[in-house]
Amino acid sequence: MKNIFESKIFDRERISLAGTEEYIVRGGRHLFSKLPEAFDGIEKIGVIGWGSQGPAQAQNLRDSLEGTDITVKIGLRAGSSSEVAAEAAGFSKSNGTLGEMFEVIRESDLVLLLISDAAQAELYKEIFAAIKPGATLGLSHGFLLGHVTNVADSFPDNINVIGVCPKGMGPSVRRLYEQGKEVNGAGINASFAIQQDVDGKATDYALGWAVGLGAPFAFMTTLESEYKSDIFGERGILLGAVHGIIECLYRRYLELDMNEIEAFINSAESITGPISKIISRDGIKAVYDSLNDNEKKVFERAYSASYIPAKDIVLEIYDDVACGNEIRSVVNAGKRHAEFPMGKIDGTRPWQVGIEVRGNRDEIKIPLNPFTAGVYCATMMAQIDVLIEKGHPYSEIVNESVIECVDSLNPYMHFKGVAHMVDNCSTTARLGSRKWAPRFDYNLTQQAFVAIDNTESVDDTLIEAFKNHKVHDALAVCAGLRPNVDISVVA
Amino acid sequence: MKNIFESKIFDRERISLAGTEEYIVRGGRHLFSKLPEAFDGIEKIGVIGWGSQGPAQAQNLRDSLEGTDITVKIGLRAGSSSEVAAEAAGFSKSNGTLGEMFEVIRESDLVLLLISDAAQAELYKEIFAAIKPGATLGLSHGFLLGHVTNVADSFPDNINVIGVCPKGMGPSVRRLYEQGKEVNGAGINASFAIQQDVDGKATDYALGWAVGLGAPFAFMTTLESEYKSDIFGERGILLGAVHGIIECLYRRYLELDMNEIEAFINSAESITGPISKIISRDGIKAVYDSLNDNEKKVFERAYSASYIPAKDIVLEIYDDVACGNEIRSVVNAGKRHAEFPMGKIDGTRPWQVGIEVRGNRDEIKIPLNPFTAGVYCATMMAQIDVLIEKGHPYSEIVNESVIECVDSLNPYMHFKGVAHMVDNCSTTARLGSRKWAPRFDYNLTQQAFVAIDNTESVDDTLIEAFKNHKVHDALAVCAGLRPNVDISVVA
Repeated sequence: MKNIFESKIFDRERISLAGTEEYIVRGGRHLFSKLPEAFDGIEKIGVIGWGSQGPAQAQNLRDSLEGTDITVKIGLRAGSSSEVAAEAAGFSKSNGTLGEMFEVIRESDLVLLLISDAAQAELYKEIFAAIKPGATLGLSHGFLLGHVTNVADSFPDNINVIGVCPKGMGPSVRRLYEQGKEVNGAGINASFAIQQDVDGKATDYALGWAVGLGAPFAFMTTLESEYKSDIFGERGILLGAVHGIIECLYRRYLELDMNEIEAFINSAESITGPISKIISRDGIKAVYDSLNDNEKKVFERAYSASYIPAKDIVLEIYDDVACGNEIRSVVNAGKRHAEFPMGKIDGTRPWQVGIEVRGNRDEIKIPLNPFTAGVYCATMMAQIDVLIEKGHPYSEIVNESVIECVDSLNPYMHFKGVAHMVDNCSTTARLGSRKWAPRFDYNLTQQAFVAIDNTESVDDTLIEAFKNHKVHDALAVCAGLRPNVDISVVA
Repeated sequence: MKNIFESKIFDRERISLAGTEEYIVRGGRHLFSKLPEAFDGIEKIGVIGWGSQGPAQAQNLRDSLEGTDITVKIGLRAGSSSEVAAEAAGFSKSNGTLGEMFEVIRESDLVLLLISDAAQAELYKEIFAAIKPGATLGLSHGFLLGHVTNVADSFPDNINVIGVCPKGMGPSVRRLYEQGKEVNGAGINASFAIQQDVDGKATDYALGWAVGLGAPFAFMTTLESEYKSDIFGERGILLGAVHGIIECLYRRYLELDMNEIEAFINSAESITGPISKIISRDGIKAVYDSLNDNEKKVFERAYSASYIPAKDIVLEIYDDVACGNEIRSVVNAGKRHAEFPMGKIDGTRPWQVGIEVRGNRDEIKIPLNPFTAGVYCATMMAQIDVLIEKGHPYSEIVNESVIECVDSLNPYMHFKGVAHMVDNCSTTARLGSRKWAPRFDYNLTQQAFVAIDNTESVDDTLIEAFKNHKVHDALAVCAGLRPNVDISVVA
């Protein structure tokens, strides 16, 4: 059986998701006392990099391991501009919790490699050479596996290689961990993967890492399945699709004679506000159920026209990720950025209007626009269906397509703006959004909106498939595995 | 020295392009009498496929070889729907000039493989197995080399492999050949490449093929250089860029309060009409020179703001082609198309407006919009600069970036509409346009137009570089190598 694991430390729980069986470990602060046992043999955890995940994971692990003999030490490139931030968070050279990255890699028993994907691709040979034999390399993303596969290389065979991949951005991982002090179990779910286990301890290391980060639950995957679903997901509904959907809806609403403010509120605000909130609390179908009969008709028209054009792009993304193209493109882009830094997207009208809208926002007046909801839910369902067709486990599917959206990214975008997110997240995700947002925009504009304007009839099969989709149950099960906490986004 | 060749049959001519030396062969009807000698050992030429290049090349070669013992025979898949068209063009089973493709491959001395890229990728192993030892495989595109490289395969080593790649779409290759009956030398330029030469005859076979097609001149390249520049070029200014530029200019002109008709005329019509005509007759700089002082300022602002955002995308395209990503994507798309056929782009407003505009067109009233010209020329120059940086020969650069645009594709788009072209050209090009047009659109909208609206100052270095660019001379030399014939586009 796929994705089963043994742990001497943590309780394995069997859950049923849409008729499939998976095994998970639930987290919580009451388990922090087990961490020394889980990390048996590990004295020093090196956290390499201070980007998005670095600060969150380093601080969470340090806090969770407080009072133990295990040290968390940050490794940065010599002269890194992040030193100041790491010091502000309490890591310092003087007390031995901050050092040069290769030094930290050489002395660590567990190396959490949280530098950018591009830097991983560039430096991996030196990093592999620096890791102690018998030590453990921890990744929070399967990107590096994808890259070494592309270049026909492999991990050193004398180390453990594990993955713990939080299904939310670093700031959410930290923020919810802090909220978890009040509500035990609040946090960002994580997948974990055992790529190489040379000493039989890899699984407990991974589970200890996930629990120490504050994951409400950890589900098993493989690094390959992780990077395929993760790089795919951020190009899809997590970032690229939501960006493209808002661009084309905003334009459409202007053409339908809304003013700029109304167009922004009915597209971006509706998605990152009420639609996300309903999905987070009650699931995707609840969006539809909350509409009146007339609105349901609008939703159905939008959903029916958008599902296939969205799935067309989603399938293309999956193929491009799975065959290695996306990873190759990211590595190539890294080489161009010295001469051609990525431009910002935030200067165009919708995002400028967004600043004004957020400044005058009255949260309860944001409408749940049924047309917007139909387009958005169709794209989300298309992504879910592709992941199902490609054989991903449901825990991964709902986390990559729903939970990470509505519990981590969309609330952040609601607070700071979609353009801010697109302009400031990881390089891999920023590249993905620039590449795929316009594709969703064009395909929806050329196919879905044209079909709607030509009053093509609703495809009832698609609507029925949506209403009766087994993902709704799977999502409800996953939602029940952790406390319902609204993330409190702070500047 | 690179790209030098020997021919016993045709005169080799040395030309100087932007300070580099290249060797070419000029074509013309007076050389048709040399074709039997050039094709020494070839009795049967099999033309496989009846798409864009197939009908043009088969008919041109048949006409050029009239009165010789060399037969041109069409090979189609059994039951192909193209049989009717091939028969209408005078090829028939009864007189032995039409047959099943593998049969034709087996019996031909020169096999011109003009089936779609996707079909080449799918069938190449069976095709290689069917070719007679010692025969010659002719390609009109390096795609297959890119594909076999991607899958770590190679051509059979007992055959010649040559390329003759007309720098224009099939209908132009045929149309200008017919016009060449009146004006000797009218035609579409072709590059040629010798990938494998097992009998010392490959060069003359390639030159004979190019002359027989009616190429005004043939210049040497390699199949690798050809597919990199060709797949790149059609994603750039030949199709993807021109599509994306028109979409974002049309939208911008609407925002600046033009009506739909005016917006279309000032974007699409201006490019495919007067701008293309001026470039075709007098070169790129002539567009600028034809403007008055105020218009020159507008051009400069648009050029200066657009060059870097366009080059950013153009560089990304080049990398994605060179590393094999684009070819892999095309092959993957072919596998999806059974379930998800490509949608049409022609339903949206600009293309619908275009139908109306063409119906009421008064050619001499189409304005040379200086803003449009600045954006378009900046993108064309960015493409030229990338090809120069990547080491392509100037003959290839000016053909792939300028001549094919203004003498083949843009006139066709002027006649039938850009959307018709995007919806009806080769699958590889259609996929490329869908992929990259939105990228040009977004990058120009997010970077160039925002900079212009923020009244950022003109970068004089870019304008001077444009005015003094050595490509202008290279283009003039190439233009002088053939008669100046306006292609007469017919339905």
